[in-house]
Amino acid sequence: MLKSRETASATLENLYRIFTVPEAPDSTLGGIDQAISNDVVGFLQTHIVALERSIEEIEADFSSSIIPENPTFVSEYTEFVKQKLVAQSVHTAAPGFIGHMTSALPYFMLPLSRIMTALNQNLVKVETSKAFTPLERQVLAMLHRLVYLGDDTFYKQWIHDSEHALGAFCSGGTIANVTALWVARNRLCAPSGSFRGLAQEGLARALRHLNCDGLAVLVSRRAHYSLAKAVDLLGLGRDNLVKIDTDANNRIDMKQLRAACRRLRDDNIRPLALVGIAGTTETGSVDPLGEMADLAEELGCHFHVDAAWGGPVLFSKRNRHQLEGISRADSVTIDAHKQLYVPMGAGMVVFKDPTAMSAIEHHAAYILRHGSKDLGSHTLEGSRPGKALLVHAGLSIIGHKGYELLIDLGIERAKSFAETIRQHPDFVLTSVPQLNILTYRYCPEKVQRCLLQATDEQRGKINQLLDQINQMLQKDQREAGKTFVSRTSLQVPPCNQKRTVLRVVLANPLTTDEILASVLDEQCTIMLQQDIQDLQQQVEALCAEVDDSPVAVCAERN
Amino acid sequence: MLKSRETASATLENLYRIFTVPEAPDSTLGGIDQAISNDVVGFLQTHIVALERSIEEIEADFSSSIIPENPTFVSEYTEFVKQKLVAQSVHTAAPGFIGHMTSALPYFMLPLSRIMTALNQNLVKVETSKAFTPLERQVLAMLHRLVYLGDDTFYKQWIHDSEHALGAFCSGGTIANVTALWVARNRLCAPSGSFRGLAQEGLARALRHLNCDGLAVLVSRRAHYSLAKAVDLLGLGRDNLVKIDTDANNRIDMKQLRAACRRLRDDNIRPLALVGIAGTTETGSVDPLGEMADLAEELGCHFHVDAAWGGPVLFSKRNRHQLEGISRADSVTIDAHKQLYVPMGAGMVVFKDPTAMSAIEHHAAYILRHGSKDLGSHTLEGSRPGKALLVHAGLSIIGHKGYELLIDLGIERAKSFAETIRQHPDFVLTSVPQLNILTYRYCPEKVQRCLLQATDEQRGKINQLLDQINQMLQKDQREAGKTFVSRTSLQVPPCNQKRTVLRVVLANPLTTDEILASVLDEQCTIMLQQDIQDLQQQVEALCAEVDDSPVAVCAERN
Repeated sequence: MLKSRETASATLENLYRIFTVPEAPDSTLGGIDQAISNDVVGFLQTHIVALERSIEEIEADFSSSIIPENPTFVSEYTEFVKQKLVAQSVHTAAPGFIGHMTSALPYFMLPLSRIMTALNQNLVKVETSKAFTPLERQVLAMLHRLVYLGDDTFYKQWIHDSEHALGAFCSGGTIANVTALWVARNRLCAPSGSFRGLAQEGLARALRHLNCDGLAVLVSRRAHYSLAKAVDLLGLGRDNLVKIDTDANNRIDMKQLRAACRRLRDDNIRPLALVGIAGTTETGSVDPLGEMADLAEELGCHFHVDAAWGGPVLFSKRNRHQLEGISRADSVTIDAHKQLYVPMGAGMVVFKDPTAMSAIEHHAAYILRHGSKDLGSHTLEGSRPGKALLVHAGLSIIGHKGYELLIDLGIERAKSFAETIRQHPDFVLTSVPQLNILTYRYCPEKVQRCLLQATDEQRGKINQLLDQINQMLQKDQREAGKTFVSRTSLQVPPCNQKRTVLRVVLANPLTTDEILASVLDEQCTIMLQQDIQDLQQQVEALCAEVDDSPVAVCAERN
Repeated sequence: MLKSRETASATLENLYRIFTVPEAPDSTLGGIDQAISNDVVGFLQTHIVALERSIEEIEADFSSSIIPENPTFVSEYTEFVKQKLVAQSVHTAAPGFIGHMTSALPYFMLPLSRIMTALNQNLVKVETSKAFTPLERQVLAMLHRLVYLGDDTFYKQWIHDSEHALGAFCSGGTIANVTALWVARNRLCAPSGSFRGLAQEGLARALRHLNCDGLAVLVSRRAHYSLAKAVDLLGLGRDNLVKIDTDANNRIDMKQLRAACRRLRDDNIRPLALVGIAGTTETGSVDPLGEMADLAEELGCHFHVDAAWGGPVLFSKRNRHQLEGISRADSVTIDAHKQLYVPMGAGMVVFKDPTAMSAIEHHAAYILRHGSKDLGSHTLEGSRPGKALLVHAGLSIIGHKGYELLIDLGIERAKSFAETIRQHPDFVLTSVPQLNILTYRYCPEKVQRCLLQATDEQRGKINQLLDQINQMLQKDQREAGKTFVSRTSLQVPPCNQKRTVLRVVLANPLTTDEILASVLDEQCTIMLQQDIQDLQQQVEALCAEVDDSPVAVCAERN
């Protein structure tokens, strides 16, 4: 717990001091600043996921709910941060940390973030952001062009147009997705005749005006959970997030999507938007965007693409064909803090139609006045930092070709790791990587064979034990702190049941094939532990009971 | 425009380099890092609002929509940033920048922000944030306690409870306000009997279930524009944001609020929430929170307090009585990037009832699993940075007493500046500072007298000229780049018409009385410009026409 020395006191003089910049690097504060910088460098160089202390143990250091009465010396506080926080955080950029969508950070992001923080611009209005406003508009135009491939004339007209915005900078993909559906909802329910629009009159009246009983958003089962939040927030109700089954490659099943649309029509529910995913969170799969665009056109509804993860695949000549059709989307989400390698807290949504965002436009007397270039008139958020600088820096310093290399590298590595897993006797690949994400599961070859011949009941029992083993594997590996994969549940063969799988995300150029091999090696070592061995023996015993003769498989589904 | 040299190229080797930390401070990248740090220090020491170049001129540097094909050297890019961005940004922390709610930054925020960025934790889940999760929960508990004054037993039970959250950390006050009303909406329309709740079934069915025609949010005319966004987003419709007139002190008029509630009842619209403001954006006024709490209790509706600005007044023994009643609110918004002096992008909302946020709880298979301590299960946003560290740092290093001093200082300074304006022959105080925000207007004494005796038509003409002068004053001062006040429109005497006023926000301990005096001096100098002199002469000419005999004033209202 943090204690404050008696000598630190709340005097005006002390206050002035902490608001004043140190004159020289050899001043006390300058020294602390330097020490902290070195410390971060030290942490970043250890390349190890944080050593495990239980979360309950860590909580003890953060258990007081009383705001300290007296000031604390900066030096004392930074010591606390080093020992209690930095030492107990997760090295998300370590090459062996391949479990989540936390990419590595190019080093130049640190000094540039410092500039961003020090300038403390507020992007809601030009008066507090000045050059950052045109910079953010430029970044949005660049991403817009990457997706929609407009020409010079188009961007010349719209990039700095004070009445419109090509998109919105957001704190992340969730706000970006919410913004896209907010715009879609308000455009579908735009003012018309005596109806003054949903924004003004509300959803219930809008439904009466449209003469329908609800608005639905259709998306595959692999959708990010932000879409469920979005339909709740927007008042549509989670019932109206219609989740469509996927094919064997985790892509939306178009036949079922069409069938769902017919059912909605019968129920007098109008499709508000189809949402295609370019890089599902769990498996990195890309929906057939072109076919979805066709259907959206047929239905006359909004087509949104959640490319929070996969958007930057557009940089790759070799792989961009997988996103074919994305330029027909009405709106596209791309997260910069994912595959643009920008620090946490930077999402974007771009709209094909530069006037689309007028549907959510708002103004105020003291800012966001009509005709001003204030970005705040077209964003869900209000005050916002100048994160666009970091995206601008990435796009400039890494460049189109640099991102192309990064994308291609991740996809290649995923393919070669998938091959390694395929050939491994103890693991089974549960989703083939279309991009740079794959899943697999501990399930030795002979157990795979026995699952094929087991009765439903036997299979259920065996799979439950395998789930337990996979969960323990993931937990023990995380706690050992050398490497990290995540876990989720997915439909897996042979019977398409929802089962625990391990998940690997390859978005760090420093992750080598050797490191990937060591992840599997470590898992094999963990499997030698007594508790897991016990479970394995139970699996073997169950398999011994399975009859050799094949039975009618897969009566049950989960 | 940024040009990339031919020698920078997208090779794997170069990529590896930018993802690797420099080994020593004397490496090239280390040197650049140092240079950037020095540059920021230089910028922060100049204490001058950025020199004016027109926004159109600046846009030319950010006009390309093509992502650079080839990589650029970090050194080259940082040169661009220095010349084109840093030199053209607004020094929001300058003591003469008193126009917006952009507070000064204590210097220690910079190195700590660097740690935060370098660690790149993602607060959505423990697996990518570890110690940052208990830290954020602690910060929320501290703010909760500041507002609700719970006892140790209460916080011991709830602070780290995996099923609940005392509040949510947000990117800013807008998301905080949206979250509060989202929770309020879903709680009012909770599952009951065969109705599975608004979150599931949507708003239209919820209204049928409640047997009413709409849900309204009631707030004073001084409300922040985020509330209009919130009712739009939540599907309630802007018609159902009922704005109540204020008294002469810009506080909600309770009589009119009660009358509005009666009208809603007649229209079969149910009050979802009353929103009290603790520190209005334009005038820093605080609504009578206790009386509003009484009414909310009577109505059985949610009571939210938007204390984005004024929340930290609770630190002050001398001033906290002004927020009396806040502890009866169901939810309270506080922005850390305002009067907690944290960099942009840190808002919070706390809920009196620790189970309230269950109304918006959500889960996913790969994270946010039931029983996990993942903070993401109770936030509107998904992936989020570890900004809570900076709030924790402020609360620890500045401490309760330090914040108390800062609050008291700002309020005192506002009062003394208000006195200066009152005594100035050329200006009129248009809102008395209850906290640390005030507004005033150029309107010389003799014109004030003439306005009292003018006919409606004469008054209209004179006021229009005065509006023009005030707008020019504000614009010219901003462009000169020495000091900065903002402007808005407010009802002003004598006839309570909406007129242009200048706005001053005092939240920088380095802003002295001398600096404030120089703001007025500069305005007096600007008034000597020919274009403004011409307008002043027109005002004088109109006043000369005004009859001495008093007329029935204020027939017209604006």
